[in-house]
Amino acid sequence: MDISSLIQKNSTKIIFVILDGVGGLPIKGKTELEEANKPNLDAIAKISACGLHIPVSYGITPGSGPSHLALFGYDPMEYDIGRGVLEALGIGLQLTKNDLPARANFATVENGIITDRRAGRIPTEKNVEICKILSENIKEIDGIEIIIKPGKEHRFVVVFRGEGLNGPLNDADPQQTGLKPVPVTPVNNDGKFAAEIANKFVGKVNEVLRKEKPANTCLLRGMTKVPDIPSMTEAFSLNPAAIATYPMYRGLASLVGMNVLKTGDTIESEFNTLKENWEKFDFFYLHVKKTDSYGEDGNKDGKVHVIEETDKFIPELLKLKPDVIAVTSDHSTPWSLSAHSWHPNPFLLFSMHERRQNDRKFDEYHCQTGALGQFYSKDAMPLMLASALKMKKFGA
Amino acid sequence: MDISSLIQKNSTKIIFVILDGVGGLPIKGKTELEEANKPNLDAIAKISACGLHIPVSYGITPGSGPSHLALFGYDPMEYDIGRGVLEALGIGLQLTKNDLPARANFATVENGIITDRRAGRIPTEKNVEICKILSENIKEIDGIEIIIKPGKEHRFVVVFRGEGLNGPLNDADPQQTGLKPVPVTPVNNDGKFAAEIANKFVGKVNEVLRKEKPANTCLLRGMTKVPDIPSMTEAFSLNPAAIATYPMYRGLASLVGMNVLKTGDTIESEFNTLKENWEKFDFFYLHVKKTDSYGEDGNKDGKVHVIEETDKFIPELLKLKPDVIAVTSDHSTPWSLSAHSWHPNPFLLFSMHERRQNDRKFDEYHCQTGALGQFYSKDAMPLMLASALKMKKFGA
Repeated sequence: MDISSLIQKNSTKIIFVILDGVGGLPIKGKTELEEANKPNLDAIAKISACGLHIPVSYGITPGSGPSHLALFGYDPMEYDIGRGVLEALGIGLQLTKNDLPARANFATVENGIITDRRAGRIPTEKNVEICKILSENIKEIDGIEIIIKPGKEHRFVVVFRGEGLNGPLNDADPQQTGLKPVPVTPVNNDGKFAAEIANKFVGKVNEVLRKEKPANTCLLRGMTKVPDIPSMTEAFSLNPAAIATYPMYRGLASLVGMNVLKTGDTIESEFNTLKENWEKFDFFYLHVKKTDSYGEDGNKDGKVHVIEETDKFIPELLKLKPDVIAVTSDHSTPWSLSAHSWHPNPFLLFSMHERRQNDRKFDEYHCQTGALGQFYSKDAMPLMLASALKMKKFGA
Repeated sequence: MDISSLIQKNSTKIIFVILDGVGGLPIKGKTELEEANKPNLDAIAKISACGLHIPVSYGITPGSGPSHLALFGYDPMEYDIGRGVLEALGIGLQLTKNDLPARANFATVENGIITDRRAGRIPTEKNVEICKILSENIKEIDGIEIIIKPGKEHRFVVVFRGEGLNGPLNDADPQQTGLKPVPVTPVNNDGKFAAEIANKFVGKVNEVLRKEKPANTCLLRGMTKVPDIPSMTEAFSLNPAAIATYPMYRGLASLVGMNVLKTGDTIESEFNTLKENWEKFDFFYLHVKKTDSYGEDGNKDGKVHVIEETDKFIPELLKLKPDVIAVTSDHSTPWSLSAHSWHPNPFLLFSMHERRQNDRKFDEYHCQTGALGQFYSKDAMPLMLASALKMKKFGA
């Protein structure tokens, strides 16, 4: 349900810690959370309401986009974040509601036929150099600003910025070599102008790179607009701040209107940033990335270590006397799968206005029979807001 | 959510055992599952993710049609299986998408008034004889093929087969004696032609049986078309097989496009059929009927015995090294109620990619606090597919 009409402002503060991908599987007896020595998280779990949450639906493995949006209180089925948007956020571009981003590959065309869809995976330095040349030569097309930013190897991002651009557009990628380039086409009539701009862009790229080899053209994919999503201030009357080291999460936070704070590269610096900004905001999203990275690498010990490192800073949070602390993962990334998974996420909700179980630890097994049961991730935000007494009664 | 776009094909295999109606109630201390000596199911539950699933909604007692469809991954509220369809499947008729089946009663009409809605419950042998005469005399009406098959006592099934037939049609049954016969009418305009055929059919039955007594007319009910349901191959890219002894379950399986395998009458023969066909399919539905039958009879010992018998064959399944085994009931049939009930169903999901609780047995009590919590039956299929790594990530 849309809870914006039930919000009541007050001075309470919420801290929301997301240990990316922390949920795991009990391979050889223990999950990563069970293995970790985390006395502070366990102590807080003991006096918290615990549960498990499901990002999208049963059996569905979510990407970071939908799983984060859900935890921020948005229905991930309603707000679709395109590949282009995520790629742009991932390399640190700030997006506006006028933007239509595309993920792009440099490719090779010979005699009108695509002969390599990745331009021989050119080195990143070459990519940077070509993007610089393109940026200098293609700044604007028919009143639309063009922003070009290199990624790794053959990958880069183009953002078309201006009025009247509508997505989604179909991918302009023949998907296999030996075929002609495919023009950009709109999925529906609204997208005609945007498709025109995208095709003119490809034309200009071909012109500028006509003497390059192997990167002498580009393929555009994942073109959808930034979703028209209400900010967390509009939706929940919050004054929210985001503390995250990785660009994609900073970008996701800015999409929902959080104030993205400058912070360092370490977990310690993230917690310090929170303390330094404690007076200025009423909602803090603090993102720990490396639990997920080690999960993706199949590195159990690495993941356990990040949990243990994070645990040390929990007492610092308590000293701030927040009204609500929630700790969870956005999705599970079991080391045994080396990938995101569909398993629900351990969740603890610490607040003097919540139920508790005196025998819980913060792990999958203990959360599965907690006071909160199993719920959809999009319901985490109403739970946090309620615990912070930021919600009025529904009906009389 | 519609998961068909997330399916990825691979070579993993799933076994899905449904012990019909196995869920029970703790009368005098124990449920049927708790009473049964079932070391193999308990051993597998110990290393499985357990939970309870709800066929339709809280407090809703399902028929076998909706409860099975839900477990096959279809929303039972979206796909309505009419009584006529179920009755036809139940007596072993194979239905096509051009079929409009009706459940029918022989009845008695005197001087234009229905005097017995069940024709004195004529013996089944008489029913068979009359159906034979009708079949010989009414083979086709206006290009529509007519299929007549006897049931028990006064009950039979008519299938109208051909192009242009649309349901649903209203029941042609006055519901009490002393009233005139009621003509078949369509629920909406689409059904006009079908209603016309049905009325002509009743007219012909009256003509053929004009000298019979007491079965000299018929009442038609439950007339809806076979639902237009995507096959499990279309929906989930599976190559599925069904092993069931009772016609209705074989029919339900064929409705969703399963390959219905020839098998014997015993549980042992069903498990043998699975082993013999192991190489040919990637999804096996194995149905054990008699847990439900004894539940309906109020026969606790009979039900316990069928659970124990099934348990003996579980090690055979493990020897096949399936990637996923799920065991559950489609609905509960507590012996104390002698009927289907609304209680959620114990479910175990065995896979190396699932969480587990080392202290679980396969029964109602232990499943209620399992890793899977409580979920709707229609989510069982995405869970099985995910555990078999047959699903891609949603979003990036």
